[in-house]
Amino acid sequence: MSTKTTIALLSGGLDSATATALAVEAGQKVIGLSFDYGQRHKKELTAAQELAKHLNLFEHHVIGVNLATWGGSSLTDLQQQVPDKGIQNGIIPNTYVPGRNTVFIAIGLSLAEARSAEKLVLGINAMDYSGYPDCRPDYLHAYQKLANLASKNGREGAGTRLWAPLINWSKLQIVQEALRLKIPINRTWSCYKGEEQPCGVCDSCRIRNEALINSGREDLCSY
Amino acid sequence: MSTKTTIALLSGGLDSATATALAVEAGQKVIGLSFDYGQRHKKELTAAQELAKHLNLFEHHVIGVNLATWGGSSLTDLQQQVPDKGIQNGIIPNTYVPGRNTVFIAIGLSLAEARSAEKLVLGINAMDYSGYPDCRPDYLHAYQKLANLASKNGREGAGTRLWAPLINWSKLQIVQEALRLKIPINRTWSCYKGEEQPCGVCDSCRIRNEALINSGREDLCSY
Repeated sequence: MSTKTTIALLSGGLDSATATALAVEAGQKVIGLSFDYGQRHKKELTAAQELAKHLNLFEHHVIGVNLATWGGSSLTDLQQQVPDKGIQNGIIPNTYVPGRNTVFIAIGLSLAEARSAEKLVLGINAMDYSGYPDCRPDYLHAYQKLANLASKNGREGAGTRLWAPLINWSKLQIVQEALRLKIPINRTWSCYKGEEQPCGVCDSCRIRNEALINSGREDLCSY
Repeated sequence: MSTKTTIALLSGGLDSATATALAVEAGQKVIGLSFDYGQRHKKELTAAQELAKHLNLFEHHVIGVNLATWGGSSLTDLQQQVPDKGIQNGIIPNTYVPGRNTVFIAIGLSLAEARSAEKLVLGINAMDYSGYPDCRPDYLHAYQKLANLASKNGREGAGTRLWAPLINWSKLQIVQEALRLKIPINRTWSCYKGEEQPCGVCDSCRIRNEALINSGREDLCSY
């Protein structure tokens, strides 16, 4: 039987690196897909390219889709400040990028259909996150239904399956899995800002560093 | 009450021009959105820009997203021939672009959310079409459910509504409505090929020309 293909959305951060490494470990032919979407900085794209090499991906594409054209987020509009005072429960922070996951998954499904890929693997995580509406299981279930109707193969029950292995994991579990998979954690980039070093105070740095401390790997912290 | 915003996906073809004109006629503030997706030719983008001016749209964006990176369609892969022998029932022709509508609607929803748009208007039509799986009502219903879950406003019942006014119209009805709306039909571009004149024999030209003849406007035919 020929090796099955998986498309992996690879942001350059810890979560998508871990999800991608799980697909590689499962023996699939993995094609990485990253996005130059007009984000604040390109550090995560550099990290994604390094990770694609480290994980020995079959191919790696970087696709441009300039969501900064209309902004609406501190990650795509330099006039907005990235929050650094910690997560406020129940409030969607301005780091939420309108429609970003919907766009990225759609482009991933396009590549998946063109290559008859069995799976599209996503690093989406609904636990230790910042309250984004498009990181929740009901969102992903609805996307799977859409994907099934969007293509001929999907209508026949043989379309691409969205696979979000980390969706219900804590960030600590993700860190532990990343360590087991020998992901070079210090080469992944999670910080929302694009300074020389991770800022340590944006939501993404805070969640990541707390998990690293709890895993006993404070040495990998970004501050 | 302030004027409500509608995002209109404008391909440069007849259907999306008609749908967009209906949104303009409804008195909404209409923002046009077109895609440079690595298509065979740029004639439709030139037409989209002309139509945006003709319809006096509030803004018009052209966003690049290069689906030709992986091809999988005669519209994004010049090695594949555009079929010219007529529509074959039950067979999805190679002009189908994997994931295209899913990607375009996703990007439209991103713009819609950034601008708090009430509607996203689509020229999608399920009747006189070439059998694409992503032009059917069940696909659009599934996309509406996804859109409702993708954003905070959507979860609160105030998200963007997908509006496909032509979905159940025949091409003849679309032509008649386009004539009523005074759309410069001969400035829209539907031909799959990008030659100096429309080819007259691809599926898109055939469907369009048949409707124009039936409407008594053979003079507007493209051959």
